[in-house]
Amino acid sequence: MKVALAQINPIVGDVDGNTARILDSMSQAANAGADIVLVPELAVVGYPPKDLLLKRGLIERNLMAVEKIAKASRDVAVVIGHVAVNDASQGKGIYNAASVVWRGNVVLTYAKRLLPTYDVFDESRYFDPGTTPGVCALDLAGGRVKIGLTICEDIWTDDLHFSRRLYGDDPVSDLASANVDVVFNIGSSPFAIGKPQRRVELFRKKATQANKPLVYVNQVGGNDDLVFDGASGAIDSEGRVLARCRSFDEDFAIVDLKSQEGQVAGLPDKEEAIYRAIVLGTRDYVSKCGFEQVVIGVSGGIDSAVTAAIAVAAVGKDRVHCVAMPSRFSSRHSLEDAESLAVALGTDYRVIAIEDIHAATEGVLRSHFEGTPADVTEENIQARARGSVLMALSNKFGWLLLTTGNKSELAVGYCTMYGDMCGGLAVLSDVPKTMVYRVARYINQRAGSELIPNRTITKPPSAELRENQTDQDSLPSYDVLDAILERYVERQQCATEIAAAGFDERTVRDVIRKVDRNEYKRQQAATGIKITSRAFGSGWRMPIAARYE
Amino acid sequence: MKVALAQINPIVGDVDGNTARILDSMSQAANAGADIVLVPELAVVGYPPKDLLLKRGLIERNLMAVEKIAKASRDVAVVIGHVAVNDASQGKGIYNAASVVWRGNVVLTYAKRLLPTYDVFDESRYFDPGTTPGVCALDLAGGRVKIGLTICEDIWTDDLHFSRRLYGDDPVSDLASANVDVVFNIGSSPFAIGKPQRRVELFRKKATQANKPLVYVNQVGGNDDLVFDGASGAIDSEGRVLARCRSFDEDFAIVDLKSQEGQVAGLPDKEEAIYRAIVLGTRDYVSKCGFEQVVIGVSGGIDSAVTAAIAVAAVGKDRVHCVAMPSRFSSRHSLEDAESLAVALGTDYRVIAIEDIHAATEGVLRSHFEGTPADVTEENIQARARGSVLMALSNKFGWLLLTTGNKSELAVGYCTMYGDMCGGLAVLSDVPKTMVYRVARYINQRAGSELIPNRTITKPPSAELRENQTDQDSLPSYDVLDAILERYVERQQCATEIAAAGFDERTVRDVIRKVDRNEYKRQQAATGIKITSRAFGSGWRMPIAARYE
Repeated sequence: MKVALAQINPIVGDVDGNTARILDSMSQAANAGADIVLVPELAVVGYPPKDLLLKRGLIERNLMAVEKIAKASRDVAVVIGHVAVNDASQGKGIYNAASVVWRGNVVLTYAKRLLPTYDVFDESRYFDPGTTPGVCALDLAGGRVKIGLTICEDIWTDDLHFSRRLYGDDPVSDLASANVDVVFNIGSSPFAIGKPQRRVELFRKKATQANKPLVYVNQVGGNDDLVFDGASGAIDSEGRVLARCRSFDEDFAIVDLKSQEGQVAGLPDKEEAIYRAIVLGTRDYVSKCGFEQVVIGVSGGIDSAVTAAIAVAAVGKDRVHCVAMPSRFSSRHSLEDAESLAVALGTDYRVIAIEDIHAATEGVLRSHFEGTPADVTEENIQARARGSVLMALSNKFGWLLLTTGNKSELAVGYCTMYGDMCGGLAVLSDVPKTMVYRVARYINQRAGSELIPNRTITKPPSAELRENQTDQDSLPSYDVLDAILERYVERQQCATEIAAAGFDERTVRDVIRKVDRNEYKRQQAATGIKITSRAFGSGWRMPIAARYE
Repeated sequence: MKVALAQINPIVGDVDGNTARILDSMSQAANAGADIVLVPELAVVGYPPKDLLLKRGLIERNLMAVEKIAKASRDVAVVIGHVAVNDASQGKGIYNAASVVWRGNVVLTYAKRLLPTYDVFDESRYFDPGTTPGVCALDLAGGRVKIGLTICEDIWTDDLHFSRRLYGDDPVSDLASANVDVVFNIGSSPFAIGKPQRRVELFRKKATQANKPLVYVNQVGGNDDLVFDGASGAIDSEGRVLARCRSFDEDFAIVDLKSQEGQVAGLPDKEEAIYRAIVLGTRDYVSKCGFEQVVIGVSGGIDSAVTAAIAVAAVGKDRVHCVAMPSRFSSRHSLEDAESLAVALGTDYRVIAIEDIHAATEGVLRSHFEGTPADVTEENIQARARGSVLMALSNKFGWLLLTTGNKSELAVGYCTMYGDMCGGLAVLSDVPKTMVYRVARYINQRAGSELIPNRTITKPPSAELRENQTDQDSLPSYDVLDAILERYVERQQCATEIAAAGFDERTVRDVIRKVDRNEYKRQQAATGIKITSRAFGSGWRMPIAARYE
């Protein structure tokens, strides 16, 4: 049996466009002599549809699309992810479903049984869980084939990410008991560092345990804060990888389960995966929001340099505008580094000094601030003057403003609301500072040239909002900070545990206090691209007016 | 049997403080000769604890608190809401629980069976559902009393808010079958317009159907976007209201189920309820975040006037700073109205003209904007200059900036990001413009004087960001706009349905398009106080990079 993997990039809510993508994949599959083609979880509506699922109109259009796809199906069967209606008188009323359509009919509609409701996932908010295994038999490839369906989480029963079993059911083992010939999994499984590797390991284990071949397709593309990495594939019943699609790109592949023939694309290593995830997330956010061009405030520092390089990779140098906005505290090397960057990247470059706005703002406040010492207020005024300039350019020319802050800053609140936090997309807001440096080196290595000036990589980081300032005036070294943050934010460790791992307890408590107290800033932050196991985005839901230490 | 209702205002995460509040209530109950005292759902940790529930430390401290409360209990039994551990090897691992503690012991721990996971509620994200009814018998008031426990949603099986039954179980009817003597419900049920009335109707129906007396306690206070209105009470088995606590205030009441004696506080009508909800929400946000003073940009318009009056009611006139920031487009009446307001309210009042910042910003952008016509960019520059001034005052003096935008503006994006949207709390962001006017009139009527200048109420609304601008240059009349928004946002109607109700179809489609396209603004909006059935807050989860019409 030849299985086609249609690793497509749907747009959330765009039922017509997504249906067209699915119909295209069906033609491709027919032309390639496939017996069946798999498209991702909820491909008809795009994942995650979020509260669009509360619109009856969306559900209805999605049902009409399934009908249309079924009518268009011939001898090549299709497994499509869509929303199905639960007719029972009780419950939420809809399922996250996979239908097998074949020769004009819907042969089987299976409802996802395990509904992830943690981190960025809210499936119990919308869906009723299915209760029965998804099994059907089709005459394909000259013989009767018994197919077992699963949807994404259905297969993630043994994820080591959780210290306990979340679910009582194991849909794959039910399919093995039903003696299916092959297990299919259609997913929309977002990227995080290490997750593609974990996914393969888990899937190999499940295929081996079930003693069945496993073919899986994953959505690809960026949808708001989530990037789906694709890397769809097939594994035989002994755990051998038979096929794998490209990562971070649309792809279409055929795997022949009988001859065991398929192409196996490699998985990118850590820095490449992070880079490509962010590039894809940026490109898709820009285009799916309908923007043509982007603008970035470049300071000569590492964060804005990496953001600009990513923007160029995402949308092309002719659509990126770099703006340097020196103040009275900017050093000469900053402006030089900003210009070198723009020259190396080949983007538009402008210098707009903020001194006049800075001075005017101080002027109107002078009598009110009389007798008070200079503090963070004066620093924030500069950051907000820059935000105002960048937003004016964004408003006037329709350029999407990309904000440049990293995860370490956002964690401890080392950033100015309505200042450097301005922007529609926070490209690096889930990338810890130490990782920003690694990505910078990777970018230069990938380009084989100094896209990001070496001095930007080697000089001590500074916000340059007062004389001779460096980040380490207010923060521990980024090595230490990032290690503490990773334990606190991603691994949910408490101060005592982190200190026990060898970190200075006062530093740990100080960092944790900063994280907790800056929730209000993150609440108003731009959408950021998730690349770690826990981002400050849709999967981070902390109270603000709270008292917990 | 005498039941005490401890309608307390917990702080989220503050286990020690909340435990102290519960112990206080126990003393009060003992002094008042009560047999049993009820405290609200999850009172030990405060509701909603959100992702603090992922911290093992919080769960452990909460368990120690339950032990402490149990040890402190004497002859007066206590029903406390807390987090309990689920020892099963599978599941999320915790319950939303109610324990009956009495004479030093935990007599019963009941796990909430119906977990709301819609709108602002995410309980399936954290909790496993309980599966057994909560029944125990105690020797109270000289006789054996069989008690039935429910927690909040457990009783909301027949809410007309939903067109279908969400749940298969009915915990109250199970308790009736178990022939309990009384049904208790401990809740943390947030306010929305009309909900207090709906709650009483529903509870009367459930008591009558079960043919049992029903005693319920509700949390009171503001926690981020949610305000809990209290109004705890008791209803006899024939549906008569025996007792009701005050709304929007801490309270402690005793109801004697035998003699049917209790005090019945009235429920405030619509405008009063909205006003008091917002005052409480503002007061608690300010104090629970640790602020002493607030600052508001006052324009002479209705939104900032109502916000300032609410701030004064919430924290007192000596802790409110009103700042007028005229531009070259401000009319004389605006500045007069702003000053009259501050004088009537008795607050600090300052005038900080933004012309210098405005002109400086235009100056640095002049060469870049050459040849382009003036548009919304130039308007936003003014709004952002004001945001920068207000945030500077906030940073310098530690005043919380209250933002003044209403729901109608936020819905259609008639507001400037990083401009008038600056602030920590959006006091009116769930109040439609037409309702802002009604609240303004209520405020003056309640005060018996013109706190809000009549001219502010009667003049046509204008942002004054260009010559002779009024809101109705860009928007339909607020009567029409609010009616369309209510149908689209709160009732989930589509364009066709709304047009069929008698609205001009082009207007309807234009409004809906504006709502959909401004999701990115709301994503970065300040926390707002929810007063309608659907706010643009934690219960509104729309994708941004989406295409759905």
